[in-house]
Amino acid sequence: PFVGAVSLIVYVSVQAFKGKPPEKKTPVNLKVMKETGKVVNMVDIEDLGDKVSYCRCWRSKKFPLCDGSHNKHNEETGDNVGPLVLKRREATN
Amino acid sequence: PFVGAVSLIVYVSVQAFKGKPPEKKTPVNLKVMKETGKVVNMVDIEDLGDKVSYCRCWRSKKFPLCDGSHNKHNEETGDNVGPLVLKRREATN
Ligand code: FES
Ligand code: FES
Repeated sequence: PFVGAVSLIVYVSVQAFKGKPPEKKTPVNLKVMKETGKVVNMVDIEDLGDKVSYCRCWRSKKFPLCDGSHNKHNEETGDNVGPLVLKRREATN
Repeated sequence: PFVGAVSLIVYVSVQAFKGKPPEKKTPVNLKVMKETGKVVNMVDIEDLGDKVSYCRCWRSKKFPLCDGSHNKHNEETGDNVGPLVLKRREATN
């Protein structure tokens, strides 16, 4: 009965702890320039080519550019993020 | 001794559970167009004004534009994210 009682109490304690709603206040950026207070990228519009994708998932190895890493992130977390795509209308693709 | 032993075991169990490394695989986007498989925004370069900031924290009420919400997000989570700023060099500010 002692072991049973202890097991029950441990089980209830752990379940209660797990049962807390997941913490929603989590960082978005895990790795990019974490030594910087705020990562702001400035881009001159005149320098933009015909088409360029900018990362918004913070998982790209080419940040601030998108390298497709959002797909793995979405699969792993159930997220639905993707890049900002800047393109020139008159560009022939 | 019974209560003491139980308390100790509960304490150790909860600490062990808390001690696990925090789950890093969390979504970035909590609210923006969650009914969409992947949120990709396409912008025509010709339509850009002299300066515009695009959100990368997914907390803006004006998404895909930045409305400054990254600051609250950073404060609440210890994160360091900020917008992508597109600007025209020759624009007189
Ligand atoms: S790699 Fe981050 S949005 Fe594509
Ligand atoms: S509000 Fe999201 S980056 Fe500014």
